[in-house]
Amino acid sequence: MSAPTVAEPSVSSLRINGQRLWDSLMRLAAIGATPKGGVCRLALTDLDRQGRDFFVSEARAAGCSIRTDAVGNLFARRAGLDDSLPAIATGSHIDTQPTGGKFDGNYGVLAGLEVVRALNDAGVRTLAPVEVVVWTNEEGSRFVPVMMGSGAFIGEFATDFILGQKDRDGVSVGEALRSIGYAGTDVVSPKSIGAYFEAHIEQGPVLEANDTTIGVVTGALGQRWFDVVITGAEAHAGPTPMELRKDALLSASALIQAVNQIALDHAPHARGTVGMLDVYPNSRNVIPGTVKLSVDFRAGDDATLSSMDAALRATAARIAKQYNVEVAVTQVVYFAPQAFAEPLVQSVRAGARTLGLSEMNVVSGAGHDAVYLARVAPTAMIFVPCKDGISHNEIEDARPEHLEAGCNVLLHAMLEQAGRGSA
Amino acid sequence: MSAPTVAEPSVSSLRINGQRLWDSLMRLAAIGATPKGGVCRLALTDLDRQGRDFFVSEARAAGCSIRTDAVGNLFARRAGLDDSLPAIATGSHIDTQPTGGKFDGNYGVLAGLEVVRALNDAGVRTLAPVEVVVWTNEEGSRFVPVMMGSGAFIGEFATDFILGQKDRDGVSVGEALRSIGYAGTDVVSPKSIGAYFEAHIEQGPVLEANDTTIGVVTGALGQRWFDVVITGAEAHAGPTPMELRKDALLSASALIQAVNQIALDHAPHARGTVGMLDVYPNSRNVIPGTVKLSVDFRAGDDATLSSMDAALRATAARIAKQYNVEVAVTQVVYFAPQAFAEPLVQSVRAGARTLGLSEMNVVSGAGHDAVYLARVAPTAMIFVPCKDGISHNEIEDARPEHLEAGCNVLLHAMLEQAGRGSA
Repeated sequence: MSAPTVAEPSVSSLRINGQRLWDSLMRLAAIGATPKGGVCRLALTDLDRQGRDFFVSEARAAGCSIRTDAVGNLFARRAGLDDSLPAIATGSHIDTQPTGGKFDGNYGVLAGLEVVRALNDAGVRTLAPVEVVVWTNEEGSRFVPVMMGSGAFIGEFATDFILGQKDRDGVSVGEALRSIGYAGTDVVSPKSIGAYFEAHIEQGPVLEANDTTIGVVTGALGQRWFDVVITGAEAHAGPTPMELRKDALLSASALIQAVNQIALDHAPHARGTVGMLDVYPNSRNVIPGTVKLSVDFRAGDDATLSSMDAALRATAARIAKQYNVEVAVTQVVYFAPQAFAEPLVQSVRAGARTLGLSEMNVVSGAGHDAVYLARVAPTAMIFVPCKDGISHNEIEDARPEHLEAGCNVLLHAMLEQAGRGSA
Repeated sequence: MSAPTVAEPSVSSLRINGQRLWDSLMRLAAIGATPKGGVCRLALTDLDRQGRDFFVSEARAAGCSIRTDAVGNLFARRAGLDDSLPAIATGSHIDTQPTGGKFDGNYGVLAGLEVVRALNDAGVRTLAPVEVVVWTNEEGSRFVPVMMGSGAFIGEFATDFILGQKDRDGVSVGEALRSIGYAGTDVVSPKSIGAYFEAHIEQGPVLEANDTTIGVVTGALGQRWFDVVITGAEAHAGPTPMELRKDALLSASALIQAVNQIALDHAPHARGTVGMLDVYPNSRNVIPGTVKLSVDFRAGDDATLSSMDAALRATAARIAKQYNVEVAVTQVVYFAPQAFAEPLVQSVRAGARTLGLSEMNVVSGAGHDAVYLARVAPTAMIFVPCKDGISHNEIEDARPEHLEAGCNVLLHAMLEQAGRGSA
C-alpha cells in the first residue's frame, strides 16, 4: 500500500468499482449454484470451503492478512497507520439457505472486500485498520443455533458448545470445521473491533415500495417466538354435531386471526406471523384433535413485545374456553430489540447524502450478525432493495446499481470511522 | 333347521344371546389386535383373510351356505321357506382403519350372524331367506374408493375398475383377493336382496348425550368434499410489514372460521369440517406462501348442500380479495343425501318399542355400506351408542348391553320383513 497522499476533496469523490463488485458476487454465486439461479452453500460443507477459499484468496490478493478463530470466523485485515487501534470492521456471511439466493450475506462480505480494493486503488491509508469478517453459519440451516459465529464471537455461546453442535447426520461443527480446513486457532478479542458495519439486501419490500436506494438501519426488532399446542378431541367429521366438537384446527384458526390482530394493534413496527402449523391426524373426515403451531412476534421495543405476549396469552385462554380445548403457549426464543449506535447510523446517512442517494430510516425485522455485534461494539447496517422483497429463495435478486450504491455508502461510512492518515 | 313351530307370542319373546355375540366380537377382535386395545385389520391383508375365515367357519357352523363375488363380498345365506323370495339381508364390514376399534363394522357382521344363530336356537323358519353380508373394504384405508364392495355390488363401480385399484405398494385389489383366497366367482344380483338392515355403533356422541339405547336411523347426510388451495407469497416474517403481506395461512384461518359458520348457519343437521391442512414452506419465520386444505360439508338434503357450496365459493372470493391471495376451490367428492325406506325404519322403531328400549331418530353423518344398498333395496340402519362417540380409534368402545339390545332390534326388524313360516 502506498503512503497517504490523498487530500479531503478527492477522498469524498472516492468510489468503489461496481463492476468488480458484481463480478465477485457472480464468481462466488457460481459455487453451489442451483439450476433455478440460486445458491445452495450450506455452512461448513465443501462448497462453503470453496467459497471461503475464494474469499481468502481475493483478500490476500488485496493485501490483507487472514486470521481464523476456533469457530471458523474469518478476519481479513487491511493494516491501519496505527495498527494498535481497534479495527473498523464490516462483513456478513457466505453460507446460504438450502434454496438461497446470491446476495443474502454474500453481498456484505464482498462489499467489504470491494471497500478494501477501492482504498487500495486510491492509495488511501486509514488511521485504524479495516477488517472484513466472514461469520460462520449465520443461516442455521445445517447447524443450530443461527448466527452461530457472531454469537460465539461476542460470548453469547461457549466455543465448546458450538463445536459440539451436530447436523442431522450427526456430524459436529468441530468435525466439519476440521474436514474443510477452517478450524482456526487465532484468538480474536471482541475488543479488537472499534465499530462494525454490515451491508445487506433488505429481504423485505419497504425500500422498493418507497423507491428508495439506501435503508439507514436504526436498529433491529426484538423477537419472541412461541410454540402453541392446542388439544381438542379427534372425532369423525360426519356423526359429530357442531355443538359437541372440540376442534383443534377451528381453535387454531381463531388464534391465527388473533396473532394478526395483535400485530396490527401494535403498529407500525410490530409483526405477528404463524409460519408453521401441523394438524393431527390430518385426515379429511376427522375433526382435528391436536394442532401445533408457531407464533413469531417482533417489535421495536420490549414494552411492545411484552404487551403482545400478554395479549397472546389472554387470547389463548379465551379460545380455550370458547372452543372447549386446551391451549398451551411456550416461549421458545427471545431476542432483545437492538438499537444501533447513533454516530454510526449518522455516518451511513451522511454517506448516502454525500453520494446523492435517496435514503430512509428502516428497522431490521430479521436477525443479522450485526445484531450480535451491536452488543460489543458500535454497529450500524446499510440496506439496499431486493426485487419484490424476496429472500431465502432462489429467485432472490438485486440491481447492480443498488449494490454499488450501498457499497459506496459503506466505503464512506467506514472511512469516516477509520480516519484518514495524514502521512 | 327344524320345521316352523313357533306361534306369535313366543316369536315376540325371541332374544339373541348377548354373551355369544360379545364372545364372537372378542374372538374377531383378537385378529389384528393392537397393544392399545384396538384392531388393525386392513382390507385384503392376511389378517383380513383370517377374519373372513373366522366368519365363514362360524356361518357354516350355523348352517349357512357361502357365496363370494368377484370383488370379495361374502354372502352367508340361511335358507327361507320360499327360497325364490329376495333375501332379507344384513351385514357390514370387517376391515378396519390402521388404528381402528373392535366394533366399527365388525358389530354389524357379527350381529347378523347372531340373528341367524338365535333363529336356529329357537327353531324359527323365515319365509324369505336371511343373508349376512361382509362387504369388502368399507374403510378405504388401503385401497380407494371407500365402500368399495357395496359400491361395486350396486353398480356404482365397474368390477374391472375395482380389481385394478392399487395400494401404495402397487398391489392391486385383484392380486390381493387372489393372494388371500377370496377372489370369488359367484354372481350375486342386487335384485336378490329384498331388504337390507345394518347395525352399527353410532360413531358419534348423540345417543350417549341423550342417554338413549337405540338410534332409529332415518337416512344419511349428503356430502360434498372440496380441495382448497390458497396461494399467497412466501416472505421473510421479520422484514415484511403486515400491510405488504400475502399470507396464505392467515387467509386459510378466515376460511376455516367461515366453514364452521356456514355449517352453523344451516343447523341442525349441517356439518362443516376442515380436517386436513398443509402449509408450505411450514417454517417458523416464513410467511406461508401456499396452504392446501380440505373442506367436508354434510347436510340432510341437497338444497342445503347446494346453499353451503354457494356460501363457500362466495367466502373464497371474499377472502381472496381481502387478503390479496388466490383461492381455488374444487369439489372432489359428492354423495347424495339418502333417506332410508320408511317401512324398514318403522320396523326398527317397532322392534325397539317391543323390546322396551329407549329410541330416538338419528341421521347418519358418516357413509356406510347401507347408504349404497339403499339405492337398490329398501334399507334401514340401527345405531347403538359408543363410548364418548369415539370411533376410528383404538379406544373405541361400546357396552355389551347396548350391543345386545341393537342385535335384538335387528332380529325383530328382520323377522318382520322376512315373514314367519307357517309350516
